[in-house]
Amino acid sequence: MRCASMIDMIDLIRKKRDGFALTAEEIDAFVQGYTAGQVPDYQAAALLMAIFLRGMTDEELRALMEAMIRSGEVLDLSTLSGPKVDKHSTGGVGDKISLHLAPAVAACGVLVPMISGRGLGHSGGTLDKLESIPGFSTCLSIQEFLSVLRRCGLSLIGQTDRLVPADKKLYALRDVTGTVESIPLIAASIMSKKLAEGIDALVLDVKVGSGAFMKTRSQARQLAETMCEIGRRAGKRVTAFLTDMSQPLGRMVGNAAEVNEAVAVLRGRGEPDLIELTRALGGEMLRLGGLVTDEHQGAARVEQALAQGEALRRFAQCALLQGARVDLAHAAEADAWMGCNLHPAQPLPSPQAGYVVSIDAQAVGLAGVELRAGRKRKEDDIDPAAYIRLDRKRGEAVEAGEPLCHVGAAPDLPPPQREAALRLLRSAYQIGPEPPPSVPLILEVLR
Amino acid sequence: MRCASMIDMIDLIRKKRDGFALTAEEIDAFVQGYTAGQVPDYQAAALLMAIFLRGMTDEELRALMEAMIRSGEVLDLSTLSGPKVDKHSTGGVGDKISLHLAPAVAACGVLVPMISGRGLGHSGGTLDKLESIPGFSTCLSIQEFLSVLRRCGLSLIGQTDRLVPADKKLYALRDVTGTVESIPLIAASIMSKKLAEGIDALVLDVKVGSGAFMKTRSQARQLAETMCEIGRRAGKRVTAFLTDMSQPLGRMVGNAAEVNEAVAVLRGRGEPDLIELTRALGGEMLRLGGLVTDEHQGAARVEQALAQGEALRRFAQCALLQGARVDLAHAAEADAWMGCNLHPAQPLPSPQAGYVVSIDAQAVGLAGVELRAGRKRKEDDIDPAAYIRLDRKRGEAVEAGEPLCHVGAAPDLPPPQREAALRLLRSAYQIGPEPPPSVPLILEVLR
Repeated sequence: MRCASMIDMIDLIRKKRDGFALTAEEIDAFVQGYTAGQVPDYQAAALLMAIFLRGMTDEELRALMEAMIRSGEVLDLSTLSGPKVDKHSTGGVGDKISLHLAPAVAACGVLVPMISGRGLGHSGGTLDKLESIPGFSTCLSIQEFLSVLRRCGLSLIGQTDRLVPADKKLYALRDVTGTVESIPLIAASIMSKKLAEGIDALVLDVKVGSGAFMKTRSQARQLAETMCEIGRRAGKRVTAFLTDMSQPLGRMVGNAAEVNEAVAVLRGRGEPDLIELTRALGGEMLRLGGLVTDEHQGAARVEQALAQGEALRRFAQCALLQGARVDLAHAAEADAWMGCNLHPAQPLPSPQAGYVVSIDAQAVGLAGVELRAGRKRKEDDIDPAAYIRLDRKRGEAVEAGEPLCHVGAAPDLPPPQREAALRLLRSAYQIGPEPPPSVPLILEVLR
Repeated sequence: MRCASMIDMIDLIRKKRDGFALTAEEIDAFVQGYTAGQVPDYQAAALLMAIFLRGMTDEELRALMEAMIRSGEVLDLSTLSGPKVDKHSTGGVGDKISLHLAPAVAACGVLVPMISGRGLGHSGGTLDKLESIPGFSTCLSIQEFLSVLRRCGLSLIGQTDRLVPADKKLYALRDVTGTVESIPLIAASIMSKKLAEGIDALVLDVKVGSGAFMKTRSQARQLAETMCEIGRRAGKRVTAFLTDMSQPLGRMVGNAAEVNEAVAVLRGRGEPDLIELTRALGGEMLRLGGLVTDEHQGAARVEQALAQGEALRRFAQCALLQGARVDLAHAAEADAWMGCNLHPAQPLPSPQAGYVVSIDAQAVGLAGVELRAGRKRKEDDIDPAAYIRLDRKRGEAVEAGEPLCHVGAAPDLPPPQREAALRLLRSAYQIGPEPPPSVPLILEVLR
C-alpha cells in the first residue's frame, strides 16, 4: 500500500495532522501528485480531513490555490480588449441572477467570461437553467468560449477539464469523505476556478441563511474574507457581498421557470429583489472594471442596459451563439417558448390568514428536488419544466385558502414525490398574525 | 465515488469529525463494512484521521474493539482445562522475554496461547526470533495451534487471517495514512487481537523510552490505562506494567542471538534484567491465572521452573511440535547450533574511559536494521545471523579502546550499511566520568 510518489505523503499528512503548516512545495507536490494519480485517494482523504480539522494558514491557503491553478491551464484573455470581470455566487435557491447580470454588465462594456456549475441538493445551478433553453450548449471548447466572449461580451459555460483539473478530483473526494464544509478548502476551490478564467476582478455573492451553504453570517463573513484575501494576494480586485438566502430569491424555483423570470428582468420588469441585487452586483462589477468611479454610477448604467433592452439583446445573442434554437430577443418567439415550457401547476392553499413570516429556502429547494427540478445525486437527470412559484413571499399578506405557492410537476411524477414536495413547502411557510420585521437583502459589502 | 454500503459513511465521518460520539451500531457497521470491502479505503482513511484528531470515548473504544473481534473468529479454548493467560509487549529492542516467559509460565500450569507479530523499524518481533530456529514454523492452522497448546501448554504463532481480519486491514491503512500513533486505535488493535485468543487474563508490558513506541511515561500510562479499562470491561483480568526501554533489554539484539540469550535464561543463567522482568511478568500471570495468591509466590514458581529445566523442556517441546529441527533441550545439539548461528563479529571500541551513561535503544534498533537483523519495510527479508552484542550496558565501566559492543554482520553486507550501523552504535553510547543514577526496570504496575 506504500505510495510510489516522489513526495513522502505520510510525513506530509503527519505534519498537518500535528498542526504544523505545510510549505508551498509540499502543497504543490500533493496537488500535482494527486491530480496525476500518483497520490492515492486514501492518502488524499486523510490529508483533507487533517486540513479540515487543523485549518490552514494564509500562506498555505494561497499555496493551495496556486497549486490548484497550476494543475491546468489559465485562460489568456489578453487579446480581448476591455476589463474582464466575473461574478460568483456560493449558491442558493432561486438564484438566477447570473442570467441577466452577465449580459447587463457586458452591455456596459465589461467582458464576462463566466464558468458556472450545476445544481446539487437544494441549491440550483446556472448551467441547468441555461440548458432548459432548447439547444443551448454549456459545453464549449476554450476556442468557442473565447469566440462567443469576443462577439457578445459574455459567454456562459461549464467547468472544462483543462482548467483546474485538481479541483474536480479533490471536490469529488471531499464529497464522499465528509470534508466539504471547510472554509480554506471551499475558498481554494472557488478562487482557483475563478482566477483560472484569466479575469482582472471578481465580485463574490456569499449567500447566508437556510438556503445557503453558510447558515450563519459569521461563517459567511469568514469565507468571504478568506476569498477576498487570497484573490487580492493574487493581484485581483475582489469585492464580496453577503446577501440574504433565508428565503428564495425572486418568485420562481426551477430551471425553465427561472429563465422566464430572468427574461422578465431583461425586459425591464423583474421582481424587486432581483433588480436590487443585479444593480448592486453589476454596479460593483463596473466599478472594479474601471468603467465608473463609484458603484452607484455603475448601478445606474446596469439599470439603463436592462431598461433599454441592450442586456436582453446580449443574452439572446450569447444564447444563439451557444446553440439556442429560440431567439429570446424576438418577443413573439420568446413568448411562444415561455408560454409552454412549464408543467401545469397546482396551488398550495394557505391554512390560515395572516402574514408570511418566513419561507425556509432550504425546504423550498428540497421540494424542487422532489419535483426533479434539482438533483439528489450528481448523476441524476433533471426536469427543466418542473418548478415552484412563490405567490407569497416574506411580509406579504394571505387569506386562508389563497395560494401560498404553485407547484408544477410532470404528469408522470410519482404521487409520493409530489406529496413530499407539498409537505416540504407546507413546512417551509410560517404564517403569523403580524408582518415580520424586514430583513435587508444585502447584508454587508466587503471591499 | 458514492459508497454502496448499507451505512451512510459520509454522515458517520461528519459526526466524528464534528466531535460527536459514534454509536456501537455505527462503529460495528463501519468495521464490518470495511472488512468486507464495502467501505472504500478513502472513507475509512478520513474516518481514521477524524478519530485520530477527535479521540474516542470509553464506550466508542469498547465498541470498536468488540466490532474488530466480531470481524473474525474467537478461539474457543473451553475444551482445554486450566487458566489461559497471555502476555503482550508493546515492542522494543532486545525484548526476547516471550521466548522464555511463555514456557516458564506454561511449566507452572498456565496455558499460554500466544499470537505475536514481526519486527518493523527499530523494534524486533517474536516471530522473527523464533524463525531463526531451523524449521520452526509460526504459521500453524488454528487446529495445529490448539494441538500444540494442549500438548505442551504453550504455542507461539503469527496472526492468522481468521482472527480479527479487521485489524490487519485497518492497520495497513493506518500505516500509510499517518494515523498510527493514536491511543484508542492502538489500544483497540492490541486488545482485539489478544481477546480473540480466548484468554481469561492478560499481562501487558508497555515499554517506555527511546526504544519504545511510547517515548514518555505519561503517554505509556495513558495507553496502559486505556487497554486495562477495555480489557476489564470485556470481563478479563488485566495487569499492565510500564517498563524501561531507554536501553535495550538483555545484551543481545538480533534474531538467532536473542534465541541464544533466551536459551541461557531457560538454562538458569540469564542476564539480570531479563530474569527480573520474567519473574515479575510471570509471577503476575500466575496470580491472574489463579495459581498463586500473590505475585511474589508466582515469581518464585517461575524462577523454579527456569532453575529446574522444566521451562527449557517446554520450550524445546513446543519448538519440535512446531517443526524445529534442533532439540534445544538436548544440550550438545543446542550448543552445536548456537555455536554456529551467528556471523563473525567485530568490536566497537570505546573512544574514552568512563561509565556508560546511556544507550539509546532506538539507535541500537536502527543499527540492527542496517545489519538486516530488522526491517525497514514489511516486505524486507531479515538475516537471522546478524546481531549486536552489548558488551557494556548502562552504569558499567569501560576503558578507552575496550569494546562497547560487537557487531555481527554478513560478510557480503555492503560496507556503507556496516558503517551506518557502527555510526549509529557510536552515537547510541554516551560515556561519562561518573556512573549514572540507576533507573528501575519496572517503572509502574497498574493492577
